[in-house]
Amino acid sequence: MNKFEVIILGSGSALPTLKKRPTSQLVHYSNKYFLIDCGEGTQVQLRKAKVSFLKINNIFISHLHGDHYFGLVGLISSMHLLGRVADLNVYAPAELKEIIYIQLRASYTQLRFKLVFHELASKETEQIFEDKNLKVHTIPLKHKIYTNGFLLKEKPRTRKMKAEKLKFYEIPHYKIDGIKQGDDFVTENGETIDNNKLTFPPEESRSYAFCSDTAYREKIIPIIKGVTMLYHETTFLEKDSELAKKTLHSTAKQAGSIAKQAEVGKLLIGHFSARYNEEDYPSFIEEVKQEFENVEVAVEQSVYKV
Amino acid sequence: MNKFEVIILGSGSALPTLKKRPTSQLVHYSNKYFLIDCGEGTQVQLRKAKVSFLKINNIFISHLHGDHYFGLVGLISSMHLLGRVADLNVYAPAELKEIIYIQLRASYTQLRFKLVFHELASKETEQIFEDKNLKVHTIPLKHKIYTNGFLLKEKPRTRKMKAEKLKFYEIPHYKIDGIKQGDDFVTENGETIDNNKLTFPPEESRSYAFCSDTAYREKIIPIIKGVTMLYHETTFLEKDSELAKKTLHSTAKQAGSIAKQAEVGKLLIGHFSARYNEEDYPSFIEEVKQEFENVEVAVEQSVYKV
Repeated sequence: MNKFEVIILGSGSALPTLKKRPTSQLVHYSNKYFLIDCGEGTQVQLRKAKVSFLKINNIFISHLHGDHYFGLVGLISSMHLLGRVADLNVYAPAELKEIIYIQLRASYTQLRFKLVFHELASKETEQIFEDKNLKVHTIPLKHKIYTNGFLLKEKPRTRKMKAEKLKFYEIPHYKIDGIKQGDDFVTENGETIDNNKLTFPPEESRSYAFCSDTAYREKIIPIIKGVTMLYHETTFLEKDSELAKKTLHSTAKQAGSIAKQAEVGKLLIGHFSARYNEEDYPSFIEEVKQEFENVEVAVEQSVYKV
Repeated sequence: MNKFEVIILGSGSALPTLKKRPTSQLVHYSNKYFLIDCGEGTQVQLRKAKVSFLKINNIFISHLHGDHYFGLVGLISSMHLLGRVADLNVYAPAELKEIIYIQLRASYTQLRFKLVFHELASKETEQIFEDKNLKVHTIPLKHKIYTNGFLLKEKPRTRKMKAEKLKFYEIPHYKIDGIKQGDDFVTENGETIDNNKLTFPPEESRSYAFCSDTAYREKIIPIIKGVTMLYHETTFLEKDSELAKKTLHSTAKQAGSIAKQAEVGKLLIGHFSARYNEEDYPSFIEEVKQEFENVEVAVEQSVYKV
């Protein structure tokens, strides 16, 4: 089974501290790395995680509050200095393109690689990326400025051939792809062998949803329904729910409620306001658990299997 | 005597590593803090140094290569979130203003404080700041893009009254300022008392010069002549002098030569290329010492008395 895991590079909120870096996550799928958000200091966090900058080909930016993208121009500059030649795709609100280019122009930097901006503007969920294994969709969120979460979902996986049947029925090679998709097999004698006899059912597609920053929003539930793992911001505890409302962030309890309604496998929480510290983590977990049991705090430099 | 010291926040070059942060220095004079350059991660380095962001009122940016300013927009955003109301002065090449504002606009941030940009454009040295104690002049440098170093110099200090003479001659209060400036004193009897009898000579004005990034440039010598402490970049060792020439940086030996010719009190070196590491520091020192003896490596989070 392909590796599918999330490496937390930063899980703090707007004010970087000595203990919490601003938001950045790396999704590692098979041999590919996808970066979600890129707060200030992300390149140093990537070095700590021992991930080569050059392995990242796709970067998704949720919104243009600084704690989610101020590290991007530095990462791009470093990729340039390190001799990158491969295209780099950035999926982000439209204004980011000019923000990056005005800074490259100021230093007369002509990138040696192609920087491809995919401008996000839709208020409805849309597919923005696809490769052999994965699709990425936006998750429109509710925040002070235009914001998207991201859903990374494995494509439906094929059925698995039973090796002994392959041999027994002398199935020709060119038939295998079809059988993995569910075809029956007709032998030379005209006998139809039911697909169920030839294959095991496919493994379930895994999926990861990143939702930050956002107020409590039930509209996202159909989009993230049944995901294997959900990261949902919990900037505040319930006692500060007025602040959550005012700043369009979520409380721990609200994130738990979303996880419950969406019937996700597991919930990761983060983006805690700088007013809290590690001693408050148990309270966050406790408040989530009023709604949803399988929850964990997203810890920087930790790896979470999807 | 007023405190006058330099706190190194970052002394690496373009590629941030786990050990070296990009350029940033804090000059602490009496109760004031002046920030010189602001590479990515400066706000975290300021927290490590336990300096309140709100105590910084003047920021000098040498040039618009990212390793000298990518941390500025994050620092400004944090100052805003922390409730700053006092004016913040930024002295920098003109393009920086739009770079900051395009990012503030993208997040709909309306700063609660006044951000005053002082656009640097002159190719000659000029005074850009003055207060009761200090003057700051630019030091035009030679680099790939428009770059200034900065000279922070105490104003000429006044002579010191001899307390016993003050009493003996019954010198009225309103005369004291003049005497400190060098006036003689005429008694009621018409006797002229020579200033030398009444005062001690003033302490020498201290000064600090920051020169980074720059190729070897003798033109700066008259500007930094006799400074108490000089920080001069040494991106390369002599064996890489071709690279220094090509990238318009300096070698250790060249920095030593500038320090010698300018007859400075002490030389601090930094901005080492990421190709070197701590084991190479002795070689940098050795090469400088071929020209100039009193040299030290600028170590992050260390404090250097001017």
